[in-house]
Amino acid sequence: MKSRLDCFPCCFAQVFRTGMIATDDQQTVKHLLDEVGDSMKELPLGSSPPEILKLMYEKIRDITGNFDPYKEIKQKSTENALKMYPYLKKIVAESEDRLFTAVKLAIAGNVIDMGIGKVFDVEHELDKAVKGQLAICDYEKFKGYLNKAEWVLYLGDNAGESVLDRVLIEELGKPVVFVVRGTPIINDVIYEDAVQAGIDKVTDIITSGTSSPGTLLDDCTDEFKEIYYNADMIISKGQGNYEALSTENAPIFFLLKAKCHVIAEDIGVNEGDIILKGPES
Amino acid sequence: MKSRLDCFPCCFAQVFRTGMIATDDQQTVKHLLDEVGDSMKELPLGSSPPEILKLMYEKIRDITGNFDPYKEIKQKSTENALKMYPYLKKIVAESEDRLFTAVKLAIAGNVIDMGIGKVFDVEHELDKAVKGQLAICDYEKFKGYLNKAEWVLYLGDNAGESVLDRVLIEELGKPVVFVVRGTPIINDVIYEDAVQAGIDKVTDIITSGTSSPGTLLDDCTDEFKEIYYNADMIISKGQGNYEALSTENAPIFFLLKAKCHVIAEDIGVNEGDIILKGPES
Repeated sequence: MKSRLDCFPCCFAQVFRTGMIATDDQQTVKHLLDEVGDSMKELPLGSSPPEILKLMYEKIRDITGNFDPYKEIKQKSTENALKMYPYLKKIVAESEDRLFTAVKLAIAGNVIDMGIGKVFDVEHELDKAVKGQLAICDYEKFKGYLNKAEWVLYLGDNAGESVLDRVLIEELGKPVVFVVRGTPIINDVIYEDAVQAGIDKVTDIITSGTSSPGTLLDDCTDEFKEIYYNADMIISKGQGNYEALSTENAPIFFLLKAKCHVIAEDIGVNEGDIILKGPES
Repeated sequence: MKSRLDCFPCCFAQVFRTGMIATDDQQTVKHLLDEVGDSMKELPLGSSPPEILKLMYEKIRDITGNFDPYKEIKQKSTENALKMYPYLKKIVAESEDRLFTAVKLAIAGNVIDMGIGKVFDVEHELDKAVKGQLAICDYEKFKGYLNKAEWVLYLGDNAGESVLDRVLIEELGKPVVFVVRGTPIINDVIYEDAVQAGIDKVTDIITSGTSSPGTLLDDCTDEFKEIYYNADMIISKGQGNYEALSTENAPIFFLLKAKCHVIAEDIGVNEGDIILKGPES
């Protein structure tokens, strides 16, 4: 997905928020804003949002010297989600369609995103997600692909959310390879976050190698790309992965909540809608 | 008032919105964002918001070639406010304290601001303002200064709002000099907008000469400054004038609605509060 002009001020505001988390020094944050402002011209209009954020987060790391500003927030987020794990398993166990419930919970988990700057209420979102309708629901197609797949590639999104990904992975009934980012970026899941969420107990974890908040293939390792292109079925979580892969011709199912109007319009749904969107064919 | 770091991404987002009004050409808006991003470093942390916006709007004018992007919006805003004029006069006439009601209406008029990007409901705000409480209410002091003043300097803020300023001016019972910006900036009132609002029928209109959305004294003409320093009483409307003059030692009464958390915290009120704040002594 190409960015729209709206994305530039939105990403710039995100740099400000992250800068304030990364350091207490106001002059450093001002210097960061100056440098990010200066680098705006390096990002053409056609850039995807993960491309924009990749460059901006490089500046955050370089200028604040903080390699993982969201580290503590991610740990706390995972810790909170783990406390809900028995409750989540109970919801799944007591549901009529375990797999569908787990899919909806995994999408609801996508609300646990510190990068978007809005107040959220996890329990409310979980409840709404399980009871509510998906604006796009390719669940039958999802089951069809899953039945035929020998294994599933699962592209993680945020830390915390990964606990709910684990619940879905446990219902898939197929071997799964779980993918994390190569470098800390926003609150996206990296290897140590996935291990904290217990993903390593249920499946393999690999890194895409990217330092952007989305699976930008040009930025991924050759090892990852080989696995990606051989996957029978790909589950892609969150906006960042959608933004990076929405135009790819691949067996991808996008599970996400449309958190901003730009992505909602790109998908053709309303802001706030949750979707399970499979490949065309 | 010095800007806070928050002001930089906020002003940058405003440049984006104004750019989209100024031109339909996406590449021009992107070029504008690049240039404004590049100029961020010219604005030190201590700059006031009007100083930031002055520079940014110079870029908007230079790059889009649109000297007054809000021209039509301002005209429509004044037109709408003029339709309410008989209703406003009736509210004042039927009130127990005509002057106080006019003061509250003038503050409520400050909600007519296209620069802030939020949905507003003028009638609702008018109603709330007349019935509601001011978070800071130096009305007795206001009457005291007014009684002693030979004439009053009135610093206008937005077009549209100026119709409500006219209603207040008509209740002051003293000669008034109404001040407009020197150059179009956001939806701030310039000479032609003030004339459209009928201000010229009730008082003199002068320009401060500034091209910023606030009365930045360093940027004003010598003629204006002479008048300013000789005023017995100054009525300052809106955030921009507050941001420019809040630290001045002058007989200023600030009439405004605190539309963002930065200014609310500076004043010591809640976001959304309306205030009538006079000089300390």
